[in-house]
Amino acid sequence: MTPPPVLPTAEERAADWWRTDIIDIAPGSIRMRGYAIEELIGRVDFPAMIWLMLRGELPSPDQAALLAAALVAGVDHGPHAPSIAVARMAATCGIGLNSAMASAINVLGDVHGGAGQQCMELYAQIDARVRQGLPIEEAAAAEIGDRLARKAHIPGFGHRFHPVDPRSGRLLALVDAARDGGTVSGHFAAIGRAVEQALAGAKGKRLPMNIDGATAVVFAELGFPAALGRGLFVLSRSVGILAHAWEQSQQGGRIKGPMPPSLAYRYTGVPARPLGDDRR
Amino acid sequence: MTPPPVLPTAEERAADWWRTDIIDIAPGSIRMRGYAIEELIGRVDFPAMIWLMLRGELPSPDQAALLAAALVAGVDHGPHAPSIAVARMAATCGIGLNSAMASAINVLGDVHGGAGQQCMELYAQIDARVRQGLPIEEAAAAEIGDRLARKAHIPGFGHRFHPVDPRSGRLLALVDAARDGGTVSGHFAAIGRAVEQALAGAKGKRLPMNIDGATAVVFAELGFPAALGRGLFVLSRSVGILAHAWEQSQQGGRIKGPMPPSLAYRYTGVPARPLGDDRR
Amino acid sequence: MTPPPVLPTAEERAADWWRTDIIDIAPGSIRMRGYAIEELIGRVDFPAMIWLMLRGELPSPDQAALLAAALVAGVDHGPHAPSIAVARMAATCGIGLNSAMASAINVLGDVHGGAGQQCMELYAQIDARVRQGLPIEEAAAAEIGDRLARKAHIPGFGHRFHPVDPRSGRLLALVDAARDGGTVSGHFAAIGRAVEQALAGAKGKRLPMNIDGATAVVFAELGFPAALGRGLFVLSRSVGILAHAWEQSQQGGRIKGPMPPSLAYRYTGVPARPLGDDRR
Amino acid sequence: MTPPPVLPTAEERAADWWRTDIIDIAPGSIRMRGYAIEELIGRVDFPAMIWLMLRGELPSPDQAALLAAALVAGVDHGPHAPSIAVARMAATCGIGLNSAMASAINVLGDVHGGAGQQCMELYAQIDARVRQGLPIEEAAAAEIGDRLARKAHIPGFGHRFHPVDPRSGRLLALVDAARDGGTVSGHFAAIGRAVEQALAGAKGKRLPMNIDGATAVVFAELGFPAALGRGLFVLSRSVGILAHAWEQSQQGGRIKGPMPPSLAYRYTGVPARPLGDDRR
Repeated sequence: MTPPPVLPTAEERAADWWRTDIIDIAPGSIRMRGYAIEELIGRVDFPAMIWLMLRGELPSPDQAALLAAALVAGVDHGPHAPSIAVARMAATCGIGLNSAMASAINVLGDVHGGAGQQCMELYAQIDARVRQGLPIEEAAAAEIGDRLARKAHIPGFGHRFHPVDPRSGRLLALVDAARDGGTVSGHFAAIGRAVEQALAGAKGKRLPMNIDGATAVVFAELGFPAALGRGLFVLSRSVGILAHAWEQSQQGGRIKGPMPPSLAYRYTGVPARPLGDDRR
Repeated sequence: MTPPPVLPTAEERAADWWRTDIIDIAPGSIRMRGYAIEELIGRVDFPAMIWLMLRGELPSPDQAALLAAALVAGVDHGPHAPSIAVARMAATCGIGLNSAMASAINVLGDVHGGAGQQCMELYAQIDARVRQGLPIEEAAAAEIGDRLARKAHIPGFGHRFHPVDPRSGRLLALVDAARDGGTVSGHFAAIGRAVEQALAGAKGKRLPMNIDGATAVVFAELGFPAALGRGLFVLSRSVGILAHAWEQSQQGGRIKGPMPPSLAYRYTGVPARPLGDDRR
Repeated sequence: MTPPPVLPTAEERAADWWRTDIIDIAPGSIRMRGYAIEELIGRVDFPAMIWLMLRGELPSPDQAALLAAALVAGVDHGPHAPSIAVARMAATCGIGLNSAMASAINVLGDVHGGAGQQCMELYAQIDARVRQGLPIEEAAAAEIGDRLARKAHIPGFGHRFHPVDPRSGRLLALVDAARDGGTVSGHFAAIGRAVEQALAGAKGKRLPMNIDGATAVVFAELGFPAALGRGLFVLSRSVGILAHAWEQSQQGGRIKGPMPPSLAYRYTGVPARPLGDDRR
Repeated sequence: MTPPPVLPTAEERAADWWRTDIIDIAPGSIRMRGYAIEELIGRVDFPAMIWLMLRGELPSPDQAALLAAALVAGVDHGPHAPSIAVARMAATCGIGLNSAMASAINVLGDVHGGAGQQCMELYAQIDARVRQGLPIEEAAAAEIGDRLARKAHIPGFGHRFHPVDPRSGRLLALVDAARDGGTVSGHFAAIGRAVEQALAGAKGKRLPMNIDGATAVVFAELGFPAALGRGLFVLSRSVGILAHAWEQSQQGGRIKGPMPPSLAYRYTGVPARPLGDDRR
């Protein structure tokens, strides 16, 4: 005879609802991914801690150094970027630094902050073609050709401001050195370069790899899934966001708008009109 | 005869409106605090980059290591913290990781994320008494006495969950080592310990320094202003926020509420009533 | 001979950058869509003002009343919804009501707040089939059949909690009355009901129209584009979000987590382990 | 003999943790403040619903109309306001309308969105002096005198752009009419006017009541607590935020910054410098 099923108690249902592999807490004890926090503090660097929290295991020092390089590369691109402008304006509105940062981080969406993630997805699709037997150059040319044929955006290449992005070459050189040292395979660096070449071939002009394309190479080489590309970029850009919010709060100003009050915006709507008398 | 004043052009007014000491950009060139980004990438670690962006100069390696220790210490305290719970719930609502992080970071306000900043302000006030000639122990006792007399909250000491916070002792030990190595003065560690002692004396029981009290020591020793205490904590906790948002998105779930649907909330308002006929 | 082009000045470029049809401001004058604000205040109700701002023209009183009904319908669904839970938790973290509302509104994403918009898109696709000559019932059956065949989610129908959603029938009855009065055509109400029937036929059980399906009918009947369905829902749910944040702030509490501290979460990760000696 | 206490079960603890007076839900039933939602829909206007959710009881039609007037008054003040600019920039970054609204609402902090709340607090303090026996004019003069003496900001009066705010006079006229009709007492309108007079006396020039001062009169006359002043303003301004985010999304644009790219910002930091060789 089958015994009646043992139903979970309310305690168990609640406990299960918030289950996690990340952190285990008891009075006097905090363990991340199994490690006691007091052992991690002072012995594991910040990028390695980021890796541990996201991946579950600690990276090698060389892996952590390569991750750090990508995190350093993305911290800021100046107040013309909406994320930075939002942070600075928010800092003059009477909210805490955390809230100024939140408003700014929030705008790192698919268009402003998502190119790295999208570029990792592009590389992954080229990688899938390579796994089916195509050489890297042909796989890249095929994928890029397909995308251009359907007029799709190619994320990670070209920059409206920098003819050559000074961050990309440096990051690629570090990936090459890590490949020579055995830290990474170099497979995604090769894919990234093949995309650059395919684009030059298809367009007849060079669209060099930009910061999103280069950090996508780094994150893919290190084994991060594409969706975390966005997350890592947010961690990186948060530094610039904080720095600008802080600088603005030191400069002062109240209710800072996008332009100096001496510059006007243009009204392009219907001309002035009265409200009809039929409205009460 | 005085020449007429030269009024700034619209270009100049706009340029001045967004002036910054942080970043200088030209086509092909990105400089942070004067350094070319391609020189920083791969040679400056992430905590050092954070320092450079916030302070204007690079830290010594020992300063950067101490900052890193504090950043590692604060990454996470589990899903019972509203910031982490918000991140996990947000990840099931159909918004990007950046937006899930924004909603979560936003709640690191005066109460949830501000204790470190407030504790730095407490230390600064004790320091002001020391500068007026009082020994540290007396300065701490006086400040704590004043605050307890007006029933003010003492930030940074005691924890509702941990009898002893495992992060605090480790951070203090690192500060002591940095003091012995000449990296920091140890002045704020002494103040923090004096607060602990003053509290024990006034309350008759030990209220040990918690993570906010300990990171406040680190940040004050390193010369950060109190307001940046909040900002640094946000950078640190963002790592846990991202890790939990990501884990939740991998676990799946749609529109995750605070409790399993099998557990109900309690309605405590007026009983059911009809809407009067006088409403149209 | 063609004169050289007159290049826009910096003033003009800045003005054009922020051009808008919505509002025209001069010292002592504020006009929305051409109407002086002092004429609108007290003569135009809030839903009519919402309509004016979004659409450019004032609605008829009957149109405004129908919009108001949909706005009233969506204000709240209790603390089990993540948006409301976020608002309540945020209110205990030491941030302003505006920031508590922001964190909550932010989670009204594609999954939690987007079903109305998606349902409007579903109706629009059925409408497109109708315009090609199909009767409404067949158009709905064909669209639903196609979606079920590719296992797509059907937004706006069925509810995990309410067997019948008490809001839907009431809203539909108001749409029917507005159709009889000549305010709306009733076309999208017919489409919505046809979807309900098509679902019942395809699934063999009734999946009644829920609040998202019903407000989608209202908004589509009133001529709003689908993307504004999300926006109108946000305006509506903001009321419940504010009410709950405010109630929580009156109840007190500090750093309210998702569950009472007496209930634990479950750690499911790797067991405790030491950090290797090779870490410095 | 006292029986042992009956400890709450986990179900009860969880239920109590999320208790609310606002909404009661059961399968097929949704009641707000005791009223069935299907009775409210179509019979209660949106401002009345806002009132019911925040206050617990329905307003009279005249109270609801006065609340509506204040909600209409505050919807927008153009793209020079950071909240509106944030909404428009966010709409070009690839996030949903809800998230664009969240980033914008978030900046309605103590400085940008808090003046109404602060002005209600000012009125309340004058009211407290009146309750102690002072005539309104003297109470206002005393409070304003004290504040000016300590160089405190007087919220709700004067405007950097409008010599006379066209919204204020109209709102005050509506309050006067409501007073004559017995809907409100007119007490806070008198206080507001007394503040205007006291300021003119103390400063020697008129600082007319602005929108914040006028809505503060309305909300105080209607019995709202000061903290809800912020909340009501957020509901009102959310309309303009949505309208501008939507308009921008229709205009297109990607990653819209605060100024056209043709206008530069000014770098004011340290000149270009090399990174020392001692960095690895």
